[in-house]
Amino acid sequence: MTLIHPVILCGGSGTRLWPRSRKPRPKPFLPLVGDRTLFEATLDRCADGTIFAAPVIVTGADHLAHVEAQLAGCADARVIVEPVARNTAAAIALAAARLPDDAVMLVCPSDHHIADVEAFRMAACAAAALAAQDWMVSFGITPTAPETGFGYIQRGEALDGGFRVDRFVEKPDLERAKAFLADGAYSWNGGIFAFRAGAFMEELRAHRPDIAEAVEQAVAKGREEGKAFHPDPATFAAIDGESVDYAVMERTARAAMVPVSMGWSDIGNWQALRDARQGDANGNRVRGNAELVDCRNVLAESDGPRINVIGLEDVAVIVDGDEVLVTTMEGAQKVGKLRGAANQ
Amino acid sequence: MTLIHPVILCGGSGTRLWPRSRKPRPKPFLPLVGDRTLFEATLDRCADGTIFAAPVIVTGADHLAHVEAQLAGCADARVIVEPVARNTAAAIALAAARLPDDAVMLVCPSDHHIADVEAFRMAACAAAALAAQDWMVSFGITPTAPETGFGYIQRGEALDGGFRVDRFVEKPDLERAKAFLADGAYSWNGGIFAFRAGAFMEELRAHRPDIAEAVEQAVAKGREEGKAFHPDPATFAAIDGESVDYAVMERTARAAMVPVSMGWSDIGNWQALRDARQGDANGNRVRGNAELVDCRNVLAESDGPRINVIGLEDVAVIVDGDEVLVTTMEGAQKVGKLRGAANQ
Repeated sequence: MTLIHPVILCGGSGTRLWPRSRKPRPKPFLPLVGDRTLFEATLDRCADGTIFAAPVIVTGADHLAHVEAQLAGCADARVIVEPVARNTAAAIALAAARLPDDAVMLVCPSDHHIADVEAFRMAACAAAALAAQDWMVSFGITPTAPETGFGYIQRGEALDGGFRVDRFVEKPDLERAKAFLADGAYSWNGGIFAFRAGAFMEELRAHRPDIAEAVEQAVAKGREEGKAFHPDPATFAAIDGESVDYAVMERTARAAMVPVSMGWSDIGNWQALRDARQGDANGNRVRGNAELVDCRNVLAESDGPRINVIGLEDVAVIVDGDEVLVTTMEGAQKVGKLRGAANQ
Repeated sequence: MTLIHPVILCGGSGTRLWPRSRKPRPKPFLPLVGDRTLFEATLDRCADGTIFAAPVIVTGADHLAHVEAQLAGCADARVIVEPVARNTAAAIALAAARLPDDAVMLVCPSDHHIADVEAFRMAACAAAALAAQDWMVSFGITPTAPETGFGYIQRGEALDGGFRVDRFVEKPDLERAKAFLADGAYSWNGGIFAFRAGAFMEELRAHRPDIAEAVEQAVAKGREEGKAFHPDPATFAAIDGESVDYAVMERTARAAMVPVSMGWSDIGNWQALRDARQGDANGNRVRGNAELVDCRNVLAESDGPRINVIGLEDVAVIVDGDEVLVTTMEGAQKVGKLRGAANQ
């Protein structure tokens, strides 16, 4: 099989892991699980040269310094620098337009955690095989809880190594999420996709010709600068921001999915981060200086001061410079609405 | 009536309000309720010159700088400096030995909060009248909850302005505390006492002659230094540390009590401090920079960093320099056992 081209998306900043994740050092570039940053771990997962070609990183100008610093061990990586963020359809199209038509791309967010790398690689190969036959392929992550924060994929008839997609479902309410979990035909849409580059551009041209044309123009008028490629700023900035889900996946007649169970987490809030980390005998997760007494399933992490916690359960205590966050796991959804998170 | 001599005890440091209260700046010298420190508020309560004489402060050498700084507005106060702490019997005896025999002393801890100062003054006058008749008088604080952290006083037959004490009761378990509360004849022993100086020394001589004699010797061999009096260090250091409760109150045949309801708190832990402070509509108490979302009855105070709390109830979050404390109100009892509190 030909090599798979990893396309790693490093956009956005997010507020849900504030105050650890902040505008100047966003989530992908933090070592949130283990010693490697989420971005580094994403590169590591695609480093096997018998399966993967050199990665293409699509990132924003404001993240470029982080990307370059953390790409240190990856000499042949190429970087595409977006002058502004225009959502995933345009970001993926930039990579597709820069790759040969017959290259099979594996689009990976850079801020997720995957515990079972072997399962990831096997799914990548299965997805690439379908993509080579011009399927637009989603990873369908086997759900482990009735999550209301993710979109779902309902699978249809079997294909070789995967399934047709019957439909994509928006974030459900809890009742529907429970029904999806019980049904067994629904997977989480984790934002990992495989496409043949030329096929992706054809589908985008069919459904969002404006985006496809503008990206091609921005690439044609772009410039190389060292390892980095800069699409034409004005042309790119004029593009509609649209997700690849809306622009392509929900419209194409050739949507497929590959089911995978790989210990996946989008580390979407402090609760998810707690769950992605290994706990001690009481389920507590500590980083930095801390003493926990009569605590269970507490996440405590500090960049300096000692954290002392007594008598709490299912709470996160985060100390980061001039901010201290104490939240129930349930309340973790609201972190982004705190004044400090909103005004950073 | 002759003036009452306030004797204000500034000993000990305590660990239960750690990390705000620490060895170098202990509880009495912190503005824990309102803008005045507990020590300043204790002075303020005894500042009415129609009732009170100038105060006598008994403190340790390590607290002297705080005492002198916070005594600024109190020109005629006298200070007795203990070379080492030897508990309340010796501390009170030092003041008694330095005062005229017929002086009526009102012994006040310096780290309590009293909301109703008028009730305090009225009780002080009633206690002083009994003390002038050589009763050893305790303030008996009307209990408002079945507290297990205080000693109790059971009152007996009525006296003019108070009652005889039937017995002093050690800290009870919860069941007995509930029974005491229901009974109505039990009060909290708040550590506030009135004595005629000469009568106190006579009682101490009767029950603990060793302490009485050693204190008198330490005073005789002591030296004045500015406003401060220093008892002889070696003589004082050799004294048995004993509480006034054990040494005198539980042994004397002339124990009396004056019942008082004055919004008293010993600010004995973070829960007590929370309760002594005024809450907002949700019962939250905030000092310093903080944002509270979906919180009830939370105490949040910071000396710098912003505190962000989501979804918690009955929790204290204290940020003080290099320590962050997060405790349930129930867990507040265990603060003193934290490594940081124990090793300060």
